[in-house]
Amino acid sequence: MNMEQAKQDLMKLQEQMSAYDHAMGLISYDGETTAPKGTAANRAHALGILSEITYKISTGKETVELLEYLDAHQQDLSDREKRMVYLLIKDIRFMQKIPMEEYVEYQKLIVESQDVWYNAKLNSDFASFEPYLEKMFDYQKRFAQYAAPDMDPYDYWLNEYEAGLCKEKLDAFFGALRQRLVPLIQACGQKPQVSDDCIKGDFPEDKQEALALWLMDTMGLDRQHVGLSTTEHPFTTSLGSHLDERITTHYHRDDVSSSMFSVVHEGGHALYDTGSDEDLAYTVLDGGVSMGIHESQSRFYENILARSKAFVRFLFPKLQNLFPEQMKPYTWQDLYRAVNRVQPSLIRTEADEVTYSLHVMIRYELEKRVMAGEMTVHELPEAWNKLYHESLGVTVPDDRQGVLQDSHWSFGAIGYFPSYALGSAYGAQFLKKMRETVDVDADLEKGDFTRINQWNREHIWHFGSLLTPQEILDRTLEAPFDPNVYLDYLESKCKDVYGI
Amino acid sequence: MNMEQAKQDLMKLQEQMSAYDHAMGLISYDGETTAPKGTAANRAHALGILSEITYKISTGKETVELLEYLDAHQQDLSDREKRMVYLLIKDIRFMQKIPMEEYVEYQKLIVESQDVWYNAKLNSDFASFEPYLEKMFDYQKRFAQYAAPDMDPYDYWLNEYEAGLCKEKLDAFFGALRQRLVPLIQACGQKPQVSDDCIKGDFPEDKQEALALWLMDTMGLDRQHVGLSTTEHPFTTSLGSHLDERITTHYHRDDVSSSMFSVVHEGGHALYDTGSDEDLAYTVLDGGVSMGIHESQSRFYENILARSKAFVRFLFPKLQNLFPEQMKPYTWQDLYRAVNRVQPSLIRTEADEVTYSLHVMIRYELEKRVMAGEMTVHELPEAWNKLYHESLGVTVPDDRQGVLQDSHWSFGAIGYFPSYALGSAYGAQFLKKMRETVDVDADLEKGDFTRINQWNREHIWHFGSLLTPQEILDRTLEAPFDPNVYLDYLESKCKDVYGI
Repeated sequence: MNMEQAKQDLMKLQEQMSAYDHAMGLISYDGETTAPKGTAANRAHALGILSEITYKISTGKETVELLEYLDAHQQDLSDREKRMVYLLIKDIRFMQKIPMEEYVEYQKLIVESQDVWYNAKLNSDFASFEPYLEKMFDYQKRFAQYAAPDMDPYDYWLNEYEAGLCKEKLDAFFGALRQRLVPLIQACGQKPQVSDDCIKGDFPEDKQEALALWLMDTMGLDRQHVGLSTTEHPFTTSLGSHLDERITTHYHRDDVSSSMFSVVHEGGHALYDTGSDEDLAYTVLDGGVSMGIHESQSRFYENILARSKAFVRFLFPKLQNLFPEQMKPYTWQDLYRAVNRVQPSLIRTEADEVTYSLHVMIRYELEKRVMAGEMTVHELPEAWNKLYHESLGVTVPDDRQGVLQDSHWSFGAIGYFPSYALGSAYGAQFLKKMRETVDVDADLEKGDFTRINQWNREHIWHFGSLLTPQEILDRTLEAPFDPNVYLDYLESKCKDVYGI
Repeated sequence: MNMEQAKQDLMKLQEQMSAYDHAMGLISYDGETTAPKGTAANRAHALGILSEITYKISTGKETVELLEYLDAHQQDLSDREKRMVYLLIKDIRFMQKIPMEEYVEYQKLIVESQDVWYNAKLNSDFASFEPYLEKMFDYQKRFAQYAAPDMDPYDYWLNEYEAGLCKEKLDAFFGALRQRLVPLIQACGQKPQVSDDCIKGDFPEDKQEALALWLMDTMGLDRQHVGLSTTEHPFTTSLGSHLDERITTHYHRDDVSSSMFSVVHEGGHALYDTGSDEDLAYTVLDGGVSMGIHESQSRFYENILARSKAFVRFLFPKLQNLFPEQMKPYTWQDLYRAVNRVQPSLIRTEADEVTYSLHVMIRYELEKRVMAGEMTVHELPEAWNKLYHESLGVTVPDDRQGVLQDSHWSFGAIGYFPSYALGSAYGAQFLKKMRETVDVDADLEKGDFTRINQWNREHIWHFGSLLTPQEILDRTLEAPFDPNVYLDYLESKCKDVYGI
């Protein structure tokens, strides 16, 4: 092997992988958006075969030899190439430890499991989903043990979603949040209640879609490369490269805020992915580096920007224009208060910023217990309802609004949820830093995202996955990560809305 | 190699191919339905890589040796296996003769070309599409010459779309049609004009969609496995197997009949594909055998059934229900006459049954000339307009309604159009045969497709691609194919509508 050829082969390998990713990602996306409802088995068939093929490519002699050669000649590699080799080897080491049959079965299970979850949620029927969820937890435990036999399985997955993360760190992080959030929520609860009447009512779907597209344009998404569809649970996915990005939303006719903030949230993910340097396309460095940094962007746009006073002031006339009758009795201040109302509730994706992290902590707690074998999957609904009652004081009326509400577990994303809270906290510290050079409020009041996006592109997006999450934090924050910045931000918001 | 292993490998090869077909078919389908408009290059990238991989699988040593072994041991194969081996070898022999680079470039070109055609049609801008169309004709000529150097290139492609077809046969077929159609059209033209006011007006898209879904249910499509989307040009595609079928339509707000008959047409294709025997899934025998037989089904449902007096009578109350204001002044007889009005026109997909074949003949004539090098692609618009004037007496106002109207050439389907006319004629002869055992009109009047579908399933659908087109015709018709049956059918329709 010679270095020139090896470098060419490295690029070719990644291009090939990106084509399979495109195909397999699209098959899943199609399943959640367009595909007829009875076709899950047909999709599982194709994905089973394709995942067997990609498994063989990844773990095949040719690939392994190539990467070992490159790894042994690090001195001849650029920083980009070094990082590519590192990430590819990491993936392959994982794959090599999983028996192919289990890997393929798992890929097929994901398709079926999502389908079963979808129907289970519709019918609030946990029993039908339970055997699938059990398998999901089993697979994730087993895969973790294959990959890192000496590591705690849940720690393994936490570290996969955010390099460096573990239960110990998360316990400390959530502990710090809890200490200031619980009294903050109590204090808000003792104040006169804020009304959210202006966002509840009758909002026809076509108007909500027009609003969604306007928001995408406003926040600077390039709709030539970013598409919008509807799904049961909103998500974002890249197809093959950051040049084709899809976000999804879910319209609730009786609540205009749900899809609105979903679109801005997923739009934040899409800005991050599509902000990768052009020449990262079709490499493993294309798109965001970790779920923590990803959520720092999505929740930054959703909350820090879109729920800010300045942006709500800009947004209100658009809502008046689309829903004149509905908005007639209200002012932009009413809208600002409504979208910042602190109110313990049932649904994570619709929770306010202050109670949000409690939703995440509940999922973290439950995942921790099941992964540690301290609790069975069968016990999840009851435990879920109990924790919601204890932490948030709400009574879960059915599993649709309880343990079945999120899609994540249905596709095996166990250990993902903490990144939502972590990302939210990163975001608050990014804001503090951004304010040093960008007049964020002045720009938001004009609906001008140019400078804000430019700052994020420069500090975060354009790197794709070149830097580690920690490197991004270190370079951007120029200070250690401190959850108190996030808590300060939340307290100041509550002060403004509730006068506490 | 031993036979048992070889038979297993044969099935595995086909399953693998079906997974790639699923992936690549879906990438194309996504491009026409959901994908953001600026993503064609990203799709071409993925399809280029995947087509290189499938090329290598098809022409690779392993595949060739397997098929040659099976071919040499025909005595040990079932009829199904023999046919599988025959069809696979046929494909591979073709692939082997095409240089891989050209094959891959061509796959990428298709994606770009469809994208360029779409915009060219929107803007009625033939010039932008011309270089792509030129390349398409060049590729098809070259591929035909690679595959069959001793054969006329256009004959090669005609035979690909319908085994056994060639210019000589088509000239005779179209000659026979022309002889009776031209005077028939003239005779209708001399009668008092039929009004189509009842299908023109303002038909909101959501109501048209409700009608489309109702039609799909009525004609017996299983919507758990057959999806409906919208595209510039309606089409049908299977993803991986007949278990996931997609049809598309295009809603014209000012004309309710356009989408209505498109849906029934594409629905006919979908019935044929999804009617394959269950155990043909993931083999090359799954789905319809040829474009001629395919069009015999699509045009059978679209015209012979859906434009029949009996079905229109059943359909009319549904239209009254969906469009009460619009339909108020009319009776089902008005609708029957409107959808059977004989009127030379510009757009093939919206043409009546009688003038339809003339649209096909024009495309046949032009393809013949360009493929023979008697005409350049640059000259196509002028020649198109001239032929429309001569044959149909209509003046083409712009290329959008002229040479750019159909998508077929944009994805290289040259030699496809004649199957529309041929299929229509097959269909009329199928009807004659079906009437021997099924009271078609009585069933249509009740909107009951059970027996009609059963007959088609038994005689045509369930075989998938097991029988050749000629075998299907021979077994089903129990008589030679005779275009006069089709012409008799059309004359009798005109007699009924125009009293001639």
